[in-house]
Amino acid sequence: MLALFFDREPRLVSDYPSPVRTPGEARLRTRVAGVCDTDLQLSHGYMNYRGVLGHEFVGEVVEADDPAWIGRRAVADINAGCGSCESCRTNSGHHCARRTVLGILGRDGALAEELVVPERCLVAVPDSVPDDCAVFAEPLAAAAHVLDEPITPTKDPVIVLGDGKLGQLIARALIAGGAKVTVVGHHPDKLALAALAGAATLLESEIEAERGLTDLVVEATGSASGLERAFSLVRPRGRVVLKTTVAGRFDVDLAKVVINELSLAGSRCGDMKRAIELLEQRAVDPRPLIAARYPLARADEALRHAARPGTLKVLVEGAGR
Amino acid sequence: MLALFFDREPRLVSDYPSPVRTPGEARLRTRVAGVCDTDLQLSHGYMNYRGVLGHEFVGEVVEADDPAWIGRRAVADINAGCGSCESCRTNSGHHCARRTVLGILGRDGALAEELVVPERCLVAVPDSVPDDCAVFAEPLAAAAHVLDEPITPTKDPVIVLGDGKLGQLIARALIAGGAKVTVVGHHPDKLALAALAGAATLLESEIEAERGLTDLVVEATGSASGLERAFSLVRPRGRVVLKTTVAGRFDVDLAKVVINELSLAGSRCGDMKRAIELLEQRAVDPRPLIAARYPLARADEALRHAARPGTLKVLVEGAGR
Repeated sequence: MLALFFDREPRLVSDYPSPVRTPGEARLRTRVAGVCDTDLQLSHGYMNYRGVLGHEFVGEVVEADDPAWIGRRAVADINAGCGSCESCRTNSGHHCARRTVLGILGRDGALAEELVVPERCLVAVPDSVPDDCAVFAEPLAAAAHVLDEPITPTKDPVIVLGDGKLGQLIARALIAGGAKVTVVGHHPDKLALAALAGAATLLESEIEAERGLTDLVVEATGSASGLERAFSLVRPRGRVVLKTTVAGRFDVDLAKVVINELSLAGSRCGDMKRAIELLEQRAVDPRPLIAARYPLARADEALRHAARPGTLKVLVEGAGR
Repeated sequence: MLALFFDREPRLVSDYPSPVRTPGEARLRTRVAGVCDTDLQLSHGYMNYRGVLGHEFVGEVVEADDPAWIGRRAVADINAGCGSCESCRTNSGHHCARRTVLGILGRDGALAEELVVPERCLVAVPDSVPDDCAVFAEPLAAAAHVLDEPITPTKDPVIVLGDGKLGQLIARALIAGGAKVTVVGHHPDKLALAALAGAATLLESEIEAERGLTDLVVEATGSASGLERAFSLVRPRGRVVLKTTVAGRFDVDLAKVVINELSLAGSRCGDMKRAIELLEQRAVDPRPLIAARYPLARADEALRHAARPGTLKVLVEGAGR
């Protein structure tokens, strides 16, 4: 089958072996997949991943233990835990030490004609949610995971640093959750998109340095300078949520963390059911974030397009479409 | 008066002007002061401080608004807030934007014959607590502040990284608070001290890399390698408390913070009353940590002694003794 395979470099292959479903798994045909910055990092060696890329997708189930799934559209939690450890029992397996992660760790991803995932990871997509929305379920779930942070009640907006696709989804998820949000970025066109979604916006240059403005800052720039800015913008005893996958090392001044007793909290994957609910309720419409779409036969081009600085979401249309 | 003054370099001066008390303040004669690593960092330019060094002390009150203080031994909260802002009302002024901090920020310190502090910052020292214990009140308060962390109930010990004077006090404070503690260090003699205080101990070389062992790690080494070790030792969703004053930049891999959804929490000063209570109840005896003592007239030597790697607490005996 067609697949975007990575070992030393990402390449489109046409003879990749089709995945074989084992009991407990579902086999899906990819309808639409999204390219994430993590895919770009993986293709530079992050996680030492080797396999088919892609973890944002909506597909059609073609084979499963439960026949009710056949023919249904679905997304999936990308974390496939062992199903029996304490982490799996209490925490959806997101921290299972034996987990595979779709297209990231030990499991071929969705930028291919077909993929297999554990059937228990599937989340059905209601008919009212179009593919172009459902394909955002994974990053939207991760974005909405910020709503699980202990947020100090405050009259001040949550500050989201970064106006890229992740910052945009986080802002939308927070607004859907009832928070006031200010997005800080340096692209007027993207800040305008965030404003349309209901966020206040500020250009980075409009932010004064060294000011405690809020109790919660979400860092979605992935840069050391963004992290230090977050430490400046948050009040003493406030919280900075580190939302970006960080492939490299950070050279960062942690003095403010101690002096102001800040907490820095990493935040990764979220609840796929909540993401689908947000999409079904139309509380979040991610479609303005679509920058381009490619057929699977040009998935390598899609990856290169996504790597251009400032690109929002690049979609890949698969065989199941 | 005699004072250990810092501008471009620390130097002992004999003609430093005696401090003048204003209403609301108390004037004290220093009985014993301690040298802290922060003093060493200040003397290398941290905080751009200029003034008399020293913030760990026990003194005798010689002048105050309230005559009941005169002649009493006291320690003091080093954070002198404005007294009227929200931080001062809710949080002892530890994060007051207009605060001075004794010997650290805008207020001359205790390595001198005399000092002044706001009278509301004073905490009386009971007769049963000797000077050699009371002088540890400030670092012990900071150590015991770890007890204020949200600690996930667990059967596993809290891991304290660092067997230096700060790690030793943190271990003692945690044990006094009912926690099981494992101190990790690389000095067998200091680990033996920690063991005498009731901690389990491990040499760094005995710790396997990459293992989630506990839900709470307290980093008291002040090094980037210590911080990364902390990220390895803590379980997914666990908490790393950054307890050291960090004067420089950290070059650190934050991937584990995101992937394992860790939180990193800065922790600074604590409650001086609680420290005095711990000393009064003999729940903590810090005296085994005393490495050397000098008269105030040799405070410059004391600072150099404290700078030798691996030195525990160096005390300076003042005029009030």
